[in-house]
Amino acid sequence: MTTHTHQTAPTQFVQANGIRFAYRRFGKAGGVPLVFNIHFLGNMDHWDPLVTDGFAKDREVILFDNAGIASSSGEVPTSIEGMAANAIAFIQALGLSQVDVLGFSLGGLVAQELSLTAPELVRRLVLVGTGPRSGEGMASLTPEAQKIFGATYDPPDNLWLSVFFAPSESSQAAGRAYLKRFRLRTEGRDPELNEKVGPRQLEALAKWGAPRPNPFDYLKAIYQPTLVINGDNDVIIYTINSYILQQNIPDAQLILYPDANHGSQYQYPERFVRHVSMFLSEEGRVSAPRFRVEPSIQEMHS
Amino acid sequence: MTTHTHQTAPTQFVQANGIRFAYRRFGKAGGVPLVFNIHFLGNMDHWDPLVTDGFAKDREVILFDNAGIASSSGEVPTSIEGMAANAIAFIQALGLSQVDVLGFSLGGLVAQELSLTAPELVRRLVLVGTGPRSGEGMASLTPEAQKIFGATYDPPDNLWLSVFFAPSESSQAAGRAYLKRFRLRTEGRDPELNEKVGPRQLEALAKWGAPRPNPFDYLKAIYQPTLVINGDNDVIIYTINSYILQQNIPDAQLILYPDANHGSQYQYPERFVRHVSMFLSEEGRVSAPRFRVEPSIQEMHS
Repeated sequence: MTTHTHQTAPTQFVQANGIRFAYRRFGKAGGVPLVFNIHFLGNMDHWDPLVTDGFAKDREVILFDNAGIASSSGEVPTSIEGMAANAIAFIQALGLSQVDVLGFSLGGLVAQELSLTAPELVRRLVLVGTGPRSGEGMASLTPEAQKIFGATYDPPDNLWLSVFFAPSESSQAAGRAYLKRFRLRTEGRDPELNEKVGPRQLEALAKWGAPRPNPFDYLKAIYQPTLVINGDNDVIIYTINSYILQQNIPDAQLILYPDANHGSQYQYPERFVRHVSMFLSEEGRVSAPRFRVEPSIQEMHS
Repeated sequence: MTTHTHQTAPTQFVQANGIRFAYRRFGKAGGVPLVFNIHFLGNMDHWDPLVTDGFAKDREVILFDNAGIASSSGEVPTSIEGMAANAIAFIQALGLSQVDVLGFSLGGLVAQELSLTAPELVRRLVLVGTGPRSGEGMASLTPEAQKIFGATYDPPDNLWLSVFFAPSESSQAAGRAYLKRFRLRTEGRDPELNEKVGPRQLEALAKWGAPRPNPFDYLKAIYQPTLVINGDNDVIIYTINSYILQQNIPDAQLILYPDANHGSQYQYPERFVRHVSMFLSEEGRVSAPRFRVEPSIQEMHS
């Protein structure tokens, strides 16, 4: 039994797919762990300790750097599918047969793809500040995101005040509190991302967001109970994309928070943990699995 | 202290605005009561005991028939404003200075208007299966609603299977369970509505839903913390209207439930009670009051 927290959990390593994956694992063991997938330009340190430790009271939390990110070896794939394949290899390398998956922003795209590629691995899905393939404004960075990521900040952490929080006084105050929490871990932090990460992640984002016919049909095949959460005015991945996710995933709930941008879960960390914990603790599924090739049938043909 | 429940709470009466209002009041006294505003063609008996008794564990619940409905005297106003004025008179006649207000469908329009007309009376607002002035498809009954309300049902209660629940097997099964709960109270039920109610309520709905310029601006003046809840495929008041409410009320959260039509709170009664209870127990408000004429200023000019 571990008594580690977000601040103290040591970075561990596991090998899979030719990659040495860095991860941290803490919280109450014994149930289905919750695996966190981080956003564009993010590493394990970007998660909010109020969120991760909030979940860790009742369940095991697993943070990791996907391939090419921070403490992990390898190269960032230029497709979401590639990132999801690596995430699956990582989870399986830990010997886990089923996990709950939380994905934020870019991590939410990886989480969707992961659920489609390895459905038996995913019990429940939490999609935060993210969107569907060919979502509104997702063919490239939104004009707001281009402006925000194109500016310089002093200190550099202030970038996240603009990416995650709304311009209102109340949201910016929540943002400053988040930035303090984000620096609370002082020992064993992840290294900064190298300069190859951004362009390769952008290439993957652009492929995912590119227009295509019937872009939302694939969502009908996500049969896991899903919770979609966002701020009500996300300028990085527009909020309407969360609505689209809810409307197309068969068994999805949607929660939107007020006065909030892309990082609503850091603005309302306690509320977020309560909503997600309630969702993760619900029994059963509302809809029967659909569009799924049963393992027995797959085996018959292999 | 009362130990009454949804099934046993006696119908009481209070006089205000020249109307004898019928109401039932039960649950844990001492806090801010939750006042329920019912839908088109509904009376006190239409509330789900799993919902009302669910709330009554932690707070006082007040059901009432607005003017002209079932056990209450008077005539149904032909405007939402008139219904809200009566609701305010009823609440004040009970000697209450502050309440939480829940409104479902037509009752959600009344609840909005009530919050605007008597803002000091309303602490928090819960809007279920409802929409804004000039909302999408709200200038008249939606085509789906016209078909559903135009058909005949045997037994007549089966109307609500179509109004409140989705066509899926799972939703219809939840609907049949709701119909049983809806008939659990056998003594002291409300009388059926008279034939004047429907046309007058429809006239009020049509005025509210009529197109007008900048129709959603009025929502900026609702400064109460608000929770908007609906099913993901409401064919009576389209789900997008819940999204519009959330996007325009300054401090509003939105929750959508899957596989659900207009009566999602009866499909997921426990989940609904937990979400709303959590919301009603939150501290403070996210946004500062805006657009509000302070009472002191009003008094200076009166």
